[in-house]
This record gives sequence, structure tokens and C-alpha cells, in this order.
Amino acid sequence: MNNFDFQNPTKIIFGKDEIAKISNEIPEGAKVLVLFGGGSIKKNGVYEQVSNALSNFEVIEFGGIPANPEYEVLLEALDIIKAENITFLLAVGGGSVIDGTKFLAAAANYKGDNPWDILANNIRTEEGKGMPFGTVLTLPATGSEMNSGAVVSRAETKEKRVLGGPGLFPKFSILDPQVVKSIPKRQIANGLADAFTHVLEQYMTYSVDAKLQDRFAEGIIQTLVEIAPTMLKDEFDYKASANFMWSCTMALNGLIQKGVPSDWAIHMIGHELTALYGIDHARTLAIITESHYTVNFDDKKEKLAQYAERVWNVSEGTLDEKAKAGIEKTTAFYQSLGIDTKLSDYTENFEGTAKEIAKRFTERGWKGIGEKGKVTPEMVEKIVEMSY
Amino acid sequence: MNNFDFQNPTKIIFGKDEIAKISNEIPEGAKVLVLFGGGSIKKNGVYEQVSNALSNFEVIEFGGIPANPEYEVLLEALDIIKAENITFLLAVGGGSVIDGTKFLAAAANYKGDNPWDILANNIRTEEGKGMPFGTVLTLPATGSEMNSGAVVSRAETKEKRVLGGPGLFPKFSILDPQVVKSIPKRQIANGLADAFTHVLEQYMTYSVDAKLQDRFAEGIIQTLVEIAPTMLKDEFDYKASANFMWSCTMALNGLIQKGVPSDWAIHMIGHELTALYGIDHARTLAIITESHYTVNFDDKKEKLAQYAERVWNVSEGTLDEKAKAGIEKTTAFYQSLGIDTKLSDYTENFEGTAKEIAKRFTERGWKGIGEKGKVTPEMVEKIVEMSY
Repeated sequence: MNNFDFQNPTKIIFGKDEIAKISNEIPEGAKVLVLFGGGSIKKNGVYEQVSNALSNFEVIEFGGIPANPEYEVLLEALDIIKAENITFLLAVGGGSVIDGTKFLAAAANYKGDNPWDILANNIRTEEGKGMPFGTVLTLPATGSEMNSGAVVSRAETKEKRVLGGPGLFPKFSILDPQVVKSIPKRQIANGLADAFTHVLEQYMTYSVDAKLQDRFAEGIIQTLVEIAPTMLKDEFDYKASANFMWSCTMALNGLIQKGVPSDWAIHMIGHELTALYGIDHARTLAIITESHYTVNFDDKKEKLAQYAERVWNVSEGTLDEKAKAGIEKTTAFYQSLGIDTKLSDYTENFEGTAKEIAKRFTERGWKGIGEKGKVTPEMVEKIVEMSY
Repeated sequence: MNNFDFQNPTKIIFGKDEIAKISNEIPEGAKVLVLFGGGSIKKNGVYEQVSNALSNFEVIEFGGIPANPEYEVLLEALDIIKAENITFLLAVGGGSVIDGTKFLAAAANYKGDNPWDILANNIRTEEGKGMPFGTVLTLPATGSEMNSGAVVSRAETKEKRVLGGPGLFPKFSILDPQVVKSIPKRQIANGLADAFTHVLEQYMTYSVDAKLQDRFAEGIIQTLVEIAPTMLKDEFDYKASANFMWSCTMALNGLIQKGVPSDWAIHMIGHELTALYGIDHARTLAIITESHYTVNFDDKKEKLAQYAERVWNVSEGTLDEKAKAGIEKTTAFYQSLGIDTKLSDYTENFEGTAKEIAKRFTERGWKGIGEKGKVTPEMVEKIVEMSY
């Protein structure tokens, strides 16, 4: 096990009808900016619950944060925060709204001239330096509700950039599994694939004999696999939704990545596919995973075999055969969610994508990504090509 | 899954040679009381590492906190805290030292006349109300390094009482698995049994379909079972020790008990055996577990069977047979650690113990304990008698 520091101060309030508790968690006298997305919260009852809970606070609203939160849109919200002397942010939405809110929490107190620098130069927000914020999660997937990282997109340059730091943990996050009821099945499938891949990125590397982290990672995957068929059915199932929601949070709240190497190559490549073609984040992960594991098979085969055995009950075959079975099971799982796993399923203009992404990585000076820093732009090109 | 709140702000600093980091974590200008036990830290190098790390702080020492931290001894430390205007506590030790320090953190700022009231009346220490403290863990077992609860003993009345509250989370805990090297094997065995039973208390109840919590609980148990033989060997094994240490912490940092019922009857009965006979805490748990699960078999058999299947690979038999196999495997695990599982292995004067403990429970008004509040003093008597 590698050395690690772990601290996660976010308060989770989990369960049925818990949204009303917001009012206990926001400091008295706060001036609150409520941030949300396309307005689905006005149809599913969440907006009303949040509004009722905030009746004792001065509140301004900012809707319209798009999926893959857009920098230019966030700048409009930043103007409001400054003009209105907002003191607390409340994100009501999924990963995009929460990530956008994290950028605003960082930018609101940023001393530099240009908030883009936070993203371009990866400036960390230290403890106590971000504007405090809470979240009401409406779309389980990204884990952003209990971590301190975020991804922001910029249409102008077709870029996705990350930010983070210990000052960007939500003060609280309210997770009511009932919100899952109104989520379109396509989004549920995305959430399952997203959380599943988050775990893989922190698990499918090389062993450092961190047995407990492995068991926890496998436990999240086993849970997602077990509930997936129920989650995709038409009827709403509270119990499965609760497991779905908590699994998505635990998949990326920092716990399972402590003491172990992590990969994130799938995400780094996948982000480019979203930036280039607007493909849903989770689906870009499903496109890249198999090729990435195939190209980097030798570095990952011990873990792939362990995963095949423990998660998929593959008991026959050599280590290599088990490892390959692990890759196949993974692709089959994505497909069982109704998610296509090839780039050509999403765009006809895929030719040249591999070269373009490799070029971007080279230009950024990303000489080697993945858990060993061994995945060169040339290998990235090969991975993307294999995903066509 | 039941509704729950979860927040755990303790910062964990985990790994080889991390003790020196204390100095970054204690507020500048703090006046520190360093608390420890019988002095083993002066033999194993931990004392020296701590002293070096504290060279820039004003430090006072208080050694001699006994196993099952004794109220009267803690009162002496409390006098020093007040007389010397201590502002920060540093526990260097195992669960007893850390628990004692938590009592002191609560008592230092307590406004009432008699600090015993904190224990007698179960007065919670709210956020920000305890004196801040950190820990350097030297004996993995209790999980006290990452939770906000504690147990204190009082020799005068042969009592063990609990305290807690969100103000009693350590600010930081340093977990260097190298400290395990000098721990006597008897204590290692106790630590394994203690952490193992902590998980059981939060898992072996009835299902609320909290699949992820079940997987995490099983993952901790699987890890403890897997490393136990290595931990009991003469040679020190860093990798196993790291898994041991992190498993003990995760077994009782609050995570796996969120959203599920928990039992704690084994602990409540076991505490009495320590109070009456001074039997090591972990060993009292090993004495009680089998009888408790046997007496409450019908309420627990579904979970017992799941545990037998997933942890012990019991695949044959009816549900009842699997559940019984789960109990047998548990007793066998304790015994594999060299821990005797009957009261008569520890004391010749066991007659009357069951009646005495049942009487104490009745006097305290504990009409029913366990996850359903169904375990009456009469049943407690039966459980203890069956453990003779």
C-alpha cells in the first residue's frame, strides 16, 4: 500500500424526504445563489422542495447550466455572485451543475485577473479559500457531490479542463434516491457506466497489495452490476436507486483511490471525445475502455484477472485468459446498459480523431499518462484508432 | 437502505515514516499535552519520533493511561490540562489512550460541576466544543483514531461507560504501519478479533437491502481473514500490517454502519466481562459472539448465511445450515488467532456471571438491546450462560 493522506469533510444527508434539511445546513443570514441546469428540477418537484426549504433565506436563482458546464455561461453566474454579494452557493443538479458550482466557488474568491487561469494553470483552491457551497444531487453519476474536483468545458476552444483543491469540498450534499424516479433511462445508463468506470480507473492498474481498497472497489462494481437490470426497468425501485446513488458517490469520493496507483487515461482520452463530438461523458468512457486495456494489457493483466475472478466469477483459464475475459465482460456490461462501445456508433467523421487527440496531448506536454506514465501520445493514438 | 447522515472530518495521514508530519497539523503556538500508556512508545522509537516532531511546540507529557482507560487516572490529566492551560491534546497509543484523550477533550471544556456526568448522562460533545486533539496510532484495533466515540472505565464501580459526539473526531490521525512491528502477538490477535467483531456488529443484523454497505463490511472481514496468518507470524510484514491497520480504521469509522441497523449487543455484554474480570476487550467479544448468534439465530440467519457464502465460500446446504456454518467459521476464526472462546477459559469464578450481568442491564433500564431492541435481560442471561 502506498502512503496517503485522506480527508473528506463533506456531510452527506442521505435518504427519503431529506431535502428539507437544507435549511439546517446553510449559515443563518446567508445570501444564496441557487444554481441548476435545464429546468428538469421544475418538473420533478425538487425545485419546489428546495424553494420551500430556503424560505428563510435571501435567494437568487441561476438556471441553464448545460451538461459539460460551459465556461462562458459560468462567467455570467460569476458576475451575479459579485454584483449581488452572494455568500453561499447551492447546486441543485447532477455533476455538471455541481462542477460548475465548484468553479464558481473557486472563482468567486480568486484574486487573479482572469478566472480562466484557475483552469489553464490548474490553480488549487486551498481549505477555506473557496466560497462555501452545498449540493442537492439530482443525477447520480460523477461523485462530484462528495469530492473536491470538477471539470469545466470551453466551447470556444473545444477544451475540457479540471480544477480542484481541499477548499472545494461541498459543505453538505443531500442525496434523496427519490430523485432517480424522473431521470431518463439514458441518463441512468450513463450514471451506471460513469461510476463503474470511475472505479476501474482507480483499480485496474497494478497491485500494491492494498487488499482492502481492492475489496471496496470490487464491492462498488459488484453492486452496480447487481442493480443495473433493475435500474433500467420502467418501474422506479427505491432500494436499487439508493444503492445506485450511494455507489456513485463512493466510487469517486477519494476513498478507494487512497494508497493505490490510479490510471485516469480513459477519462483523459474520453474528455477529448466529448470536446470534439459532444458525446455523453459516460459513453466516451465505454468507447475507450476496451482498447485502453487491450493496448496496456501486460501492465494490467494481473488486476484484470483478479477482477474477472472476483466480480464476474471467471474461474477457468490461464491468467491471460481470465484477464481477457475481464475485458470482454466489461464491454458486455456497457452494452447491457444500451451503451454503444465504438466511436463509429456515434459519429461518421471519426477518421483523424486518433491523430487529433494525440496531437492535443503532445501539445499539452502530456508525454505519458496512466498509472505508470507510460501511455505516450503514440499509444493514445493507437487506443483511439482501435476504438473506431 | 435506511436514511442516514454521514460526516467524518478526521484527516488520516497513512504510511511509512509519516509521524514527522505531526508538526504540520498542530496549530502554531499550541501548548500540547502528549498522552500515552505504559511506556512501550519509549522502547519502539515512536516516542522519539513524536518528540522530534514536536520540537517547536511547548509540550507537557502524561503517561500511564491504562488499558480500559481509567476515570480516576484521567482526572489527574484533566487537572494538568487546566493548570497548564493546555490547548491541544496528542494521544500516542492505542484505543485506550485515544479514548481517554477523547474524554479529556470533552471534559476540558465541560461547563458542569462533575465530569462523570458526561459519562453517566451520556452528554454529547457538539462540533467545536471539544478541545482539539490528534492521534498517533500505535495499536490498530478499535478504530478510535477515526471516529468520535470512546469508552471509559471506572474501577470504583466496575463500570465501562461510553461518550461521544461530533466534537470528538480527532483533527488528524497518523497511521504508520511500522508501529505494528513491536506489538506483542497477543495484542495483534486482539486487534484482529476486535476489528472483525466491529464489522459483525454492524453487519450481522437483518437486511435492509444496503448492498454496498454489505460488500464493504464483507470486504473488511475478507481482508482481516486473509492477512491474519501473516500477522501472527514472527516476522514483521509491512504490507499485511498496512492492510491490518487500514482495515481496523475502516471497521469503525462510521462508514459501514450508515444506512443499516446495528447490533452492539456483543460489545455491551462483553464490556461487563472486562469490568468484572479484566478480560481483554477483544476476548470478551470472542466469548459472547457464538452464543449471541445462537440465541438470536432466527433474526440473523439470512445475514449469517450470506456471510457464510461470501466470506467463507460455504456453498452447500439449506439457509439454516449455511447460517450455522457461518457461526462455526466465526468461532474457528477467533480460535485460529489463539483466542479462547469460553468464559471458563478465563476465570474459574464464572458461576453467577450471567445473573449479575442481566441484573446490571435491568438496573440500567436496558429492557432490550440489539438491532431490534429485542434482546432482553433474560436473553442476555441465557447468552452469557451459554458462553461459560
